[in-house]
Amino acid sequence: MEGARTVDAFGRAQKIRMIIFDVDGVLTDGGVYIGAEGELFKAFNIKDGMGIALWQRAGLKTAIITGRTSKMLEQRAAELHITEFRQGCIDKRDAYKEIKEKHSLTDEEIAYIGDDLIDLPVMLQVGLAAAPADAVVDVRDRAHFVACKTGGHGAVREVLEFIMKSQGLWRDIVNTFLS
Amino acid sequence: MEGARTVDAFGRAQKIRMIIFDVDGVLTDGGVYIGAEGELFKAFNIKDGMGIALWQRAGLKTAIITGRTSKMLEQRAAELHITEFRQGCIDKRDAYKEIKEKHSLTDEEIAYIGDDLIDLPVMLQVGLAAAPADAVVDVRDRAHFVACKTGGHGAVREVLEFIMKSQGLWRDIVNTFLS
Amino acid sequence: MEGARTVDAFGRAQKIRMIIFDVDGVLTDGGVYIGAEGELFKAFNIKDGMGIALWQRAGLKTAIITGRTSKMLEQRAAELHITEFRQGCIDKRDAYKEIKEKHSLTDEEIAYIGDDLIDLPVMLQVGLAAAPADAVVDVRDRAHFVACKTGGHGAVREVLEFIMKSQGLWRDIVNTFLS
Amino acid sequence: MEGARTVDAFGRAQKIRMIIFDVDGVLTDGGVYIGAEGELFKAFNIKDGMGIALWQRAGLKTAIITGRTSKMLEQRAAELHITEFRQGCIDKRDAYKEIKEKHSLTDEEIAYIGDDLIDLPVMLQVGLAAAPADAVVDVRDRAHFVACKTGGHGAVREVLEFIMKSQGLWRDIVNTFLS
Repeated sequence: MEGARTVDAFGRAQKIRMIIFDVDGVLTDGGVYIGAEGELFKAFNIKDGMGIALWQRAGLKTAIITGRTSKMLEQRAAELHITEFRQGCIDKRDAYKEIKEKHSLTDEEIAYIGDDLIDLPVMLQVGLAAAPADAVVDVRDRAHFVACKTGGHGAVREVLEFIMKSQGLWRDIVNTFLS
Repeated sequence: MEGARTVDAFGRAQKIRMIIFDVDGVLTDGGVYIGAEGELFKAFNIKDGMGIALWQRAGLKTAIITGRTSKMLEQRAAELHITEFRQGCIDKRDAYKEIKEKHSLTDEEIAYIGDDLIDLPVMLQVGLAAAPADAVVDVRDRAHFVACKTGGHGAVREVLEFIMKSQGLWRDIVNTFLS
Repeated sequence: MEGARTVDAFGRAQKIRMIIFDVDGVLTDGGVYIGAEGELFKAFNIKDGMGIALWQRAGLKTAIITGRTSKMLEQRAAELHITEFRQGCIDKRDAYKEIKEKHSLTDEEIAYIGDDLIDLPVMLQVGLAAAPADAVVDVRDRAHFVACKTGGHGAVREVLEFIMKSQGLWRDIVNTFLS
Repeated sequence: MEGARTVDAFGRAQKIRMIIFDVDGVLTDGGVYIGAEGELFKAFNIKDGMGIALWQRAGLKTAIITGRTSKMLEQRAAELHITEFRQGCIDKRDAYKEIKEKHSLTDEEIAYIGDDLIDLPVMLQVGLAAAPADAVVDVRDRAHFVACKTGGHGAVREVLEFIMKSQGLWRDIVNTFLS
């Protein structure tokens, strides 16, 4: 699975102020790990977490909109300091509109990463629509940026770095660790 | 591992009204995750789950026939609204016959996804026999449709989409998310 | 990672009456999954399990010799009806000698699958030494048969089928599921 | 993902007396497995563990410096007899300096394996900086040795073997298992 991007993806990335994540298949590897009592755990990624920390330190915003509901996500969202998150969203456009207005942002200032059909309505509105390499083909075909990496294995980190590089922020971030 | 299909797979898919799933290695990744007290969890897939929801919304039927027995499967089957499921089947043909008659279906109207020898007796009867890319070779050789994806990593979704596309249902489903 | 075999592997396989398994990295994927209280689970494989059941049904014997000790293995061994198993073996040759004599077998009648240096002393004695594709190179170089598949992802099944095919048993086994 | 090494990596490896490990993404596969109560487990690797045991038996030292804190790591560190470990390190240089002085070692005698930006400050100081194949590109570009294998899937073992081979220790170690 390879990455791909539309010709205007870089320009779109330059305007982004907030990124919104889908959860299963984007922040996780898409596995649904079921124990005797129901979902036992979700598989997130350490490098995605570091990317989100650097993104926030750069003054950029984060949010989560997901169709499912789980305690695991609440745990991980707290750890990642993502305070804007909406669970159990059947139509993600409602949560999207609410978050956008609350933060006084325009569509052009928001990026969204999704991997399945339920993500399309929001992906068609945002300034930058991104997808992991293993998103379904109907989503990949409509994304401005398709990561080389798959969900839960660095796709989120890759999208975050792409946006921060487009805004000239990345070199300074790396330099902090080199001085 | 690559997909493959017989020349008549598309025509066979057009007649399908119900799909029956094997569990381990088909709906899961084939891992047997054993804790101190026995099986701890099973690894299902979020995109397979979405595919099953869309399949059911299109009025098509689902069932599960498995040789093993587990609480994890019961949890997942409930979540997926698969009410027809038979566990602990040593000879899967009995459960198959029973489900077929209960729903007044013919062999030609049923698809089955399996990955190991125990699935062959039913696969030889159904209208469309499908297998994940990592099914054993004796099963792959006898399937009408072999998915490009492996069990628990999207094989089920791929088979469901193939059948729904053969019936002209897929474009409308995607369009629901684009309007 | 690819499979490989010595020119005499087929002839060696024809004489085998018992197979002995290492556990971590052979029957499992080599992951050591540690929770707050210690090892939480081991990741076995469903198709390996089916292969072992078919092997036993053909009248062939199974045993386990492992350097570690765990409740998970005891659970899985019971499920697989492997009654000969030795845990916590620092020098695996002692357990090997004991099992060999108890079953009145010769070295030529025993196969062993291992993936690391600790397996070498026994692998140098048995009639057929096998290894998963992801065994360490010092083991792969000394194996008569290196599987195409990795540990916990079908390597065991592949070795079992190779031996049963060499003995002309496999076609009959498959035919049982075709009649 | 492929391995790579600087032209002086072999010479650098010859001087190493201690190796320091980052944890998530190096000793583990980088997965963050979150249950309802927080992190449920970490995924370590059995062959890395064997490599560490052989390394210690050869009289070489081990340490861990990690930014996170977890009971799972404490469990695994105890199992691996790694007594020098520092958790919750925001700036890893402090722990590095302390360990180096405590063991009267020079920078040239220490190797470090890391996979993300937070590891760079220490990687720029040590004699041999190593990285798993799936380390972030900014780390891979600054490592003397990039493993062919990924974190939690043998990268640590590969680095340990490389160093022990550079010091002429490996052949004797393998021979112990061949006699």
